[in-house]
Amino acid sequence: MAYSNFLNLNYQPKEEDLICLFKIEPEKGFSIEEAAARVASESSNGTWTDLTTMTEEIRKLSAKVFEIKGNLVKIAYPIELFEPGNMPQIVSSIAGNVFGMKAVKNLRLEDVYWPEQIVISFKGPKLGISGIRKMFKIYNRPLTATVPKPKVGMTSKEHAQVAYQIWTGGVDIVKDDENLSSQKFNRFEERIKETLKMRDKAENETGEKKGYLPNISSETKEMIKRAEKVAEEGGEYVMIDILTTGWASLQTLREKTEELGLAIHAHRAFHAAFTRNPKHGVSMKVIAEISRLIGVDQLHVGTVVGKLESPLQEVKALIKILREEEAHENSELTILKKKFFKLKPVLPVSSGGLHPGLIPKIIEIFGKEVLIQAGGGVLGHPDGPKSGAAALRQAINATISNISLKTYAEEHKELKTALEKWGFTKPK
Amino acid sequence: MAYSNFLNLNYQPKEEDLICLFKIEPEKGFSIEEAAARVASESSNGTWTDLTTMTEEIRKLSAKVFEIKGNLVKIAYPIELFEPGNMPQIVSSIAGNVFGMKAVKNLRLEDVYWPEQIVISFKGPKLGISGIRKMFKIYNRPLTATVPKPKVGMTSKEHAQVAYQIWTGGVDIVKDDENLSSQKFNRFEERIKETLKMRDKAENETGEKKGYLPNISSETKEMIKRAEKVAEEGGEYVMIDILTTGWASLQTLREKTEELGLAIHAHRAFHAAFTRNPKHGVSMKVIAEISRLIGVDQLHVGTVVGKLESPLQEVKALIKILREEEAHENSELTILKKKFFKLKPVLPVSSGGLHPGLIPKIIEIFGKEVLIQAGGGVLGHPDGPKSGAAALRQAINATISNISLKTYAEEHKELKTALEKWGFTKPK
Repeated sequence: MAYSNFLNLNYQPKEEDLICLFKIEPEKGFSIEEAAARVASESSNGTWTDLTTMTEEIRKLSAKVFEIKGNLVKIAYPIELFEPGNMPQIVSSIAGNVFGMKAVKNLRLEDVYWPEQIVISFKGPKLGISGIRKMFKIYNRPLTATVPKPKVGMTSKEHAQVAYQIWTGGVDIVKDDENLSSQKFNRFEERIKETLKMRDKAENETGEKKGYLPNISSETKEMIKRAEKVAEEGGEYVMIDILTTGWASLQTLREKTEELGLAIHAHRAFHAAFTRNPKHGVSMKVIAEISRLIGVDQLHVGTVVGKLESPLQEVKALIKILREEEAHENSELTILKKKFFKLKPVLPVSSGGLHPGLIPKIIEIFGKEVLIQAGGGVLGHPDGPKSGAAALRQAINATISNISLKTYAEEHKELKTALEKWGFTKPK
Repeated sequence: MAYSNFLNLNYQPKEEDLICLFKIEPEKGFSIEEAAARVASESSNGTWTDLTTMTEEIRKLSAKVFEIKGNLVKIAYPIELFEPGNMPQIVSSIAGNVFGMKAVKNLRLEDVYWPEQIVISFKGPKLGISGIRKMFKIYNRPLTATVPKPKVGMTSKEHAQVAYQIWTGGVDIVKDDENLSSQKFNRFEERIKETLKMRDKAENETGEKKGYLPNISSETKEMIKRAEKVAEEGGEYVMIDILTTGWASLQTLREKTEELGLAIHAHRAFHAAFTRNPKHGVSMKVIAEISRLIGVDQLHVGTVVGKLESPLQEVKALIKILREEEAHENSELTILKKKFFKLKPVLPVSSGGLHPGLIPKIIEIFGKEVLIQAGGGVLGHPDGPKSGAAALRQAINATISNISLKTYAEEHKELKTALEKWGFTKPK
């Protein structure tokens, strides 16, 4: 078996190669070299046996393992292997069968370098961070969002009423949760109408721009119909569960928003099924890059301090991938170099178990270029949603003014009550 | 925190509840009861804090942990939580945020019971096993398929030529591989035309029905266009990578095939990123059930003996899920009961490192109701693709006639040569 065709430690990758960084734990009986070469083989043009149909011309398309450091392996893929603009094809190649290979005990796709021809074959974000800031005319503080909770069960009218309180309390954006779509108790069309009506009312009363993120996740054609409905009713956003709908439909939606002018808010439900184990699966970094390429405007990246697992180093790397124009090879947080060419930056979303007492920590981690989403941490306020929203906004105002929450709370009763309930620590 | 609202070990699940079986490894500091209740909470209508907006009416929508045995936990979900016919919404609910919860160290969705209202909201397979058998007029043996290898690199004409040899050698179906879509070296439209032309030729020469599985995986609208092209050119199948395209687009494709009359062949590239770790992620059983609900006609389930990891017990459970009408609770291979109502059975596909010497073992595991796919095990035949295809067909003929391959090979030189090259054992 000539797996050595797929191993060339002297190979100098070309600028137009796509490069993958894999973490490989070989199965017993396989060296790291052989396991790595087998991964390169399976994900390009090799198979488990030699072929009479292999030619010199075709062999040029073989992927090559060009660096092995411990269990970190870099593989270069000739660009001809890929169909530009077709994310399912690219993912099936570099992150397809390989995870099931018997030659590896564990395999993790840690990072990808996307060459220019691939990057520019995708649209990238429609609005990006600057477009979103312009829409809200908010330039100097984090944006805020709240999911009306309980996340499912409220009627459309109740949902709109709670949204109204959240907005008038001082939060910028109301968001549907990932399991709210169009159920009997709260039909999509009615929710959109009622909630956007209340958004207009809240905008009139507060003089502030308010946003709504309706969850359109469903079969692709239905999803596009829901996006059209949102645009028709004067919405500015759609929200989609990018992993439970999938890359094909996210691309379809992104093409549609070009015409509708809507921003895409990306929820990442399901990601931890394959990102959480540090030895196996695909890193959230890769998911964030794919999301930026296809073109979401906002993406959940974790909190470090909330209810869902998200380590500090990972969150910092995700922030970098979403917000920066490029990254050098072996930079602090990412390993492969990155270039996003003309693709706009994506606004990172911090969400999951946040409350006012955690805001200073979130701003310390993210800076101001973030959407801070608190659901329970607003709706759980003892004086109701409006006070909860006010407390969140106060926590942000205090932090960006370099005033401690404790001091600020002396003059702001909503914040005071929130801190009395939740303190300054992580939710248990 | 009232997580106990989500725990009721006296609860008797209703026939219309959706039931999930999770394997839970709690994080340190959490009992199995608390971790389980938190999973039920996060995946229904709870959050990490108590809410002023919770009502008795909404509380009826809470999921309930109703059985805990060791680390196996059963949770019942009221049907009202779900939008029938919307698979992304259902997956986001029961397999969404939960995998990232800090309360669990590892969490695996092992099995699901789908109530009738959910099952019949999906189309199920268009043709199913009986429709596919009828198409080929083959009723008494496994069907066979081969991927022309090298899986990428051949031109459209070369691809069609190799396909022709495979068909005339005796294989029923030619299949694109998961990373072949529409690359420069082999454009989709040209490949379809050339390959289907050769299929017609092979059909005329052999007098047998021949099939072709063109990989249409791409952005949804492009994918539908490619499916239309296939129908227009007289194809009978489309192939899709169900996980790298996603559930939303698979549903869209299934709606389209209702009109086009095409069968769907489902490749599962990426699945092992989240199915392989027995402690975390989602089991392949759940993926197989979702695939049957949405309505693929053929699905890859592994080989047990090939190059990709697929344990015997899992493969047997998958066969059962795809082929049978129902399963009892606590039956040998599945834990939750299953009812597929009027949804047709799906043909299991065994693929990945197969060659003629392994055929008796495959038929022992699968019986005759299977599509046996060998790529390298046909294309690697020393005398070329046609001889490789003949050897595969001979191995099947021998096995279903209860003749040992060794004996059969005495009179069949293609099989003899294949056995000399690969023997009777697993590929290394």
